[in-house]
Amino acid sequence: MTTECRFCNGERPAPDHRVGELGATTLYLNDDQFFPGWVVLVLKRHATELFELEPAERARMMDEVSRVAGVLHALYAPRKINYGCLGNQIAHMHWHVTPRRHDDPAPRDAHWGVAHTPVRLTPAELSERIATLKHALGL
Amino acid sequence: MTTECRFCNGERPAPDHRVGELGATTLYLNDDQFFPGWVVLVLKRHATELFELEPAERARMMDEVSRVAGVLHALYAPRKINYGCLGNQIAHMHWHVTPRRHDDPAPRDAHWGVAHTPVRLTPAELSERIATLKHALGL
Repeated sequence: MTTECRFCNGERPAPDHRVGELGATTLYLNDDQFFPGWVVLVLKRHATELFELEPAERARMMDEVSRVAGVLHALYAPRKINYGCLGNQIAHMHWHVTPRRHDDPAPRDAHWGVAHTPVRLTPAELSERIATLKHALGL
Repeated sequence: MTTECRFCNGERPAPDHRVGELGATTLYLNDDQFFPGWVVLVLKRHATELFELEPAERARMMDEVSRVAGVLHALYAPRKINYGCLGNQIAHMHWHVTPRRHDDPAPRDAHWGVAHTPVRLTPAELSERIATLKHALGL
């Protein structure tokens, strides 16, 4: 727990984007839904690099990333799923899992390099997308 | 083995950038060394998404990603290490592990979004960087 950490202090990700608890991680829908189904898994404890985790904890976290990816694949039928753990802005370990669609404007590029206006869902759309994910994950 | 896959057919990554065998993966120095120490771990068998791997294989792969990250951290003392498995250009599962330095031109951005001229090492520099990594990994 590091109080300066915006994940540890609950400031981020946006609490209303929380999908549910997975075990080692908490799942959130990403604020920006330009890539539909883009989610973020946040490690429940503060750590920054993979080698700070014990092997069993790392495996558990990656199993959760994999489980979520499988559900996103079933829901969105993407061309490819992108997995990224950067932490350049908030070092607290988290994983971006991003379905990349066939009609994506730049399907061969990293989504970080795709210029776009962020897509914010309406409250109704947000509730529906979270409910769909919760149902698919059995949460 | 998919013969159309540029990783399976040995075309990529550049064979002269091979560092060594780790177990589930083969380690290569990335062609572009704009971010010094940027490496790529390629899964030895053809798979594209995390959920295609058995849990034990996935854990083994991630332990190797973690081991390499630890070595890069010791060698380059980065501000943060970035981990990415995209596969938008070559879907065969591979991990970019990229030390991001304090003097990085955009340390808060994903390295995919940092415009730069690729840095190609001379043959002597390439040999030295690979030898340093091999030594640090005990390969």
